[in-house]
Amino acid sequence: MTPLYECRLKCELPQIVEALVRSVHDTPKIDHIDTHDLPSRRAIVEILTDLYSLLFPGFIRQDLCHANLDYFVGDRVDRLFVRLRDEIAKALLHGNEGREEIAIKEAKDRAEQIAVEFLKRLPEVRHLCETDVEAAFAGDPAAKSLAEVVFSYPGFHAIATYRLAHELLLLGVPLIPRFMTEHAHKETGIDIHPGATIGEGFFIDHGTGVVIGETTTIGKRVQMYHGVTLGAFSPRKGQALRGKKRHPTIEDEVTIYPNATILGGETVVGRGSVVGGNVWLTHSVPPGSRVAVESPAPKIISSDDSQV
Amino acid sequence: MTPLYECRLKCELPQIVEALVRSVHDTPKIDHIDTHDLPSRRAIVEILTDLYSLLFPGFIRQDLCHANLDYFVGDRVDRLFVRLRDEIAKALLHGNEGREEIAIKEAKDRAEQIAVEFLKRLPEVRHLCETDVEAAFAGDPAAKSLAEVVFSYPGFHAIATYRLAHELLLLGVPLIPRFMTEHAHKETGIDIHPGATIGEGFFIDHGTGVVIGETTTIGKRVQMYHGVTLGAFSPRKGQALRGKKRHPTIEDEVTIYPNATILGGETVVGRGSVVGGNVWLTHSVPPGSRVAVESPAPKIISSDDSQV
Amino acid sequence: MTPLYECRLKCELPQIVEALVRSVHDTPKIDHIDTHDLPSRRAIVEILTDLYSLLFPGFIRQDLCHANLDYFVGDRVDRLFVRLRDEIAKALLHGNEGREEIAIKEAKDRAEQIAVEFLKRLPEVRHLCETDVEAAFAGDPAAKSLAEVVFSYPGFHAIATYRLAHELLLLGVPLIPRFMTEHAHKETGIDIHPGATIGEGFFIDHGTGVVIGETTTIGKRVQMYHGVTLGAFSPRKGQALRGKKRHPTIEDEVTIYPNATILGGETVVGRGSVVGGNVWLTHSVPPGSRVAVESPAPKIISSDDSQV
Repeated sequence: MTPLYECRLKCELPQIVEALVRSVHDTPKIDHIDTHDLPSRRAIVEILTDLYSLLFPGFIRQDLCHANLDYFVGDRVDRLFVRLRDEIAKALLHGNEGREEIAIKEAKDRAEQIAVEFLKRLPEVRHLCETDVEAAFAGDPAAKSLAEVVFSYPGFHAIATYRLAHELLLLGVPLIPRFMTEHAHKETGIDIHPGATIGEGFFIDHGTGVVIGETTTIGKRVQMYHGVTLGAFSPRKGQALRGKKRHPTIEDEVTIYPNATILGGETVVGRGSVVGGNVWLTHSVPPGSRVAVESPAPKIISSDDSQV
Repeated sequence: MTPLYECRLKCELPQIVEALVRSVHDTPKIDHIDTHDLPSRRAIVEILTDLYSLLFPGFIRQDLCHANLDYFVGDRVDRLFVRLRDEIAKALLHGNEGREEIAIKEAKDRAEQIAVEFLKRLPEVRHLCETDVEAAFAGDPAAKSLAEVVFSYPGFHAIATYRLAHELLLLGVPLIPRFMTEHAHKETGIDIHPGATIGEGFFIDHGTGVVIGETTTIGKRVQMYHGVTLGAFSPRKGQALRGKKRHPTIEDEVTIYPNATILGGETVVGRGSVVGGNVWLTHSVPPGSRVAVESPAPKIISSDDSQV
Repeated sequence: MTPLYECRLKCELPQIVEALVRSVHDTPKIDHIDTHDLPSRRAIVEILTDLYSLLFPGFIRQDLCHANLDYFVGDRVDRLFVRLRDEIAKALLHGNEGREEIAIKEAKDRAEQIAVEFLKRLPEVRHLCETDVEAAFAGDPAAKSLAEVVFSYPGFHAIATYRLAHELLLLGVPLIPRFMTEHAHKETGIDIHPGATIGEGFFIDHGTGVVIGETTTIGKRVQMYHGVTLGAFSPRKGQALRGKKRHPTIEDEVTIYPNATILGGETVVGRGSVVGGNVWLTHSVPPGSRVAVESPAPKIISSDDSQV
C-alpha cells in the first residue's frame, strides 16, 4: 500500500526543519536571534495614529467640540507617553548594541525624557502642518476645501509624518523615525528621510515616487509633484559617505514638476526657480532659473504600429 | 530622594496638554472641531468592498453560483443602500457648510435619491469594467487569463474604483469620490481624479506613479504604463484656475510608455499616437504621431566608477 | 401622504437587483460564477507572513533565542505546509480549467509534492536574502545597520517576496506567485514579475515605481533606484508575444539611477555599466558604459512665473 502524501511529508518534516534551523545559524545577518527586542511595528503604527489625532483632532475623532477637547487631548497625551517611552527605550537599547552598554534602567530614563521633550514640540509641529495645508489648498485648483486636503491628500499625510519623525530623530532616537517615514512611504509612495530639513508651507501634489534624501535641505513654500527625486551620487562608495552632505539644497519658493531628478550634495536650486518634468539635473542653477528639456517633435507613423 | 522620571512627567503633563489645547484653538484650519461630521473613512472602505463584490461577485465571494446569486446581490444592494445614504448625507451637510444651509432632513432625502440613482448605474459600470479587463488581457503578454487580471492587476482595480467614484461625482456628492480614488491610490500608486472622463477599454499596466488630473479627457482603447502623468501647468496660480480645463485630451487608441509627462489643457494627443517613455510633452501632436526622445549614446568608463 | 424616501427605495430595490443579476449573466468575463474556487487572498497573505517569519525569524517574532528556535521553526513549517497545500491545490484546479481535467484528488497530491519541494528550497532563499541585505547596507550611506535594512527597507521586502514567488512559479504553481508579488507591489510600489531571473546581492533603493518584467534577466550585485523600468515594446501585439523574451538583460554590477526606462528583449546592458536617471534606453550598451542625458542649461525667468 502506497503511503499517503501527507505521511510522506511527516517523514520529510524533520529534515526540512533541521535544514532551516541550520540555515538560521549560518545567516546571522538576517536572523535577529538572542538579542534585544526591536521596537514593535504594531506599537509604532498605534503611536502614529495617536499623534495624528493630536495634530488633526476632529479629522480622526468625530464629535469633538470645545467642551470635550481637553479630556480627549489629556487622555491621548497620557496614553502616548507610555507607548512612546516603551518603544523609544527598546530602540535605544537596540541601537547601541555592540557599542557602549546602556543599562536597561538608563535607557528607560532617557526614553522618558525624550518622550516628554517630544510631546512638548507637538504645538510647533501643528503650526508647520497648518502652513502645509494652506500651501496645498492655495496651490491646487482641484482642492475643494482645506478639509479635503487634510482628509485625503497623501502628500499632506506624508509631510506631517516626516515632521513628527524628524523631531524624534533630532532627539536621538534610532530606528523609529525611519520606520515612521517608511510607514508613510508604504501608504503614500512618498519617501522622505527623517533626517531631511524642510521649511514651512511645503506642498507635494499626488506624490507617488517622491524621494527626499537624508541630507536634503528644502526652504520655505516649495512646491513639487510626484516622482521628484532629491538624491545622491555614487552609490557604490556606500558607507564611506555616511554623514556627508550628499543631497541637494532647494531654496525658497522653488517649483519642481513631475519626475525631475536632482542629484548631489553641492547642487543648489536657487530661490524661485522652476524645474520642468523629467529633467536630470546634476549641477546648481541660480535664483529665478527655468530648467526644462524640449518636447520632442512628433513624427507621423502608420497607425497600427505602437513601436516607439 | 530624586523623583521618579514618571513623576516628573506627571508634573509636566498638564502644561503639555494645555499647550496642545491652546494650539488647537490657534490653528483652526486643521482642527475640525465643533462642526458637522465628516464621512467615516472606515465606512467608505466598507462601501467600496461591497461595490467590488457587486462588480466582480465571484472574485470577492467564493461559492457563488447561479442558484444563490440573486440572494447575494439582493442582500448586498440592501446593505449598500443604507451605508451609502448615511455617508452621502454627511458629505452633503459637510460640503455645504458656510454656504446655504441644508437641513439635516433634506440632506438625508437627497442622499437617498442619490444612492438609488447610483445603484441603478452599476450595470453600466460593470459593462465598462468588462471592456477594461478585455483590454488588459489583450494588451499584456504576461497575463495568463482574464481571471488573473481581475484577481491581481492593480491598474484594473484603480480604474474600476475611478469608474465608481466618477458616477458619485456626477451625482453631486462631495468628498467621498476623492476619498475613494485616494484609497485606490494608496493601494495601487495610481492617482485618477474622479472628475476625469475616460472611455471604454482603458488599460494601465503596472501603474505605480500614474497621475490623471481632474479635467483630463481620455478616449477609447487607450493603453498606458506606470509613471504616466496627464497633468496641469502653472500651479502657483492655484485656486484661480479652478474649474478650467487644465489637463490634456488623449484621443482613441493612443499608447503612452512609462514615465511620460503630458501637460496642459490645450494639449491634444491625436488618435492612434504613440508617446515614448520619459518624454516631456507640452504641446499637441496630430493623429498617428510617434513622439520619443533619442536614447543617449554610451561612453566607456572605468568599471569601478559609478559616477554619472 | 407622500411616501418616505426609504419606501421609494423598497419599491425600486427589486428592479435594481434584477438589473444587476442580469448584468452578471451578460458579463461572464468578470463574474467568476459556477467555477472552481480561487485561492484565498487572505490565506496567501498569511502564508507570506509565515514565510517571512522563517526567512527573518527574530524580526517577525520577538524573544527568539537559540533555545526556542527549533520549536518555532518546526511549528511554522508544519502550519505552512497545510496552508500552502490547500491554496496550491485551488490554484492548480483553477489554472487548468478549460484545458485538461485535473481530478481534485490529483491536484491535492501534486500540491503536497510542490509544498514539500518549496519548503526544501527556503534555506537557499535565505542565503540569497543575506546577500541582498549586505548589498543594501554596503550601497546606502543612509543605512545605519543591517537590522535597519531588514526592519524597514521596502526594496529588501519586495526582493524577498519575489524570491519566494519565483520558486513557486518554477514549481508550476499558477496565480499565487503573481498574487504574492502584487501584494509586495501594493506595499512597496515595486513590481517584480515572479518570472524574472535575478542574481545575488540585488539592491533596490527607495523603490517606488520600479517595474521588472517577466522575461528580464539580472546578474549579480546589480543596484538600482526607484522608478527604474525593465520593460517591453509593442504592447498592442499583446498575447501574440506570450513566452518570448521581451525584457532586457542586465549584466553583473550594473548601476541604474532613478526613473531610467530600459526596454526590449534584445537590449543588453553590459557588465559594470552605469545608466543615468530619466534615460530612455532601447538598445544595448557594451560593458563599462556610462549612459546619461545632459542636464539642460538654466534660463533666467521672472520670479513670479512658474510656467515651464
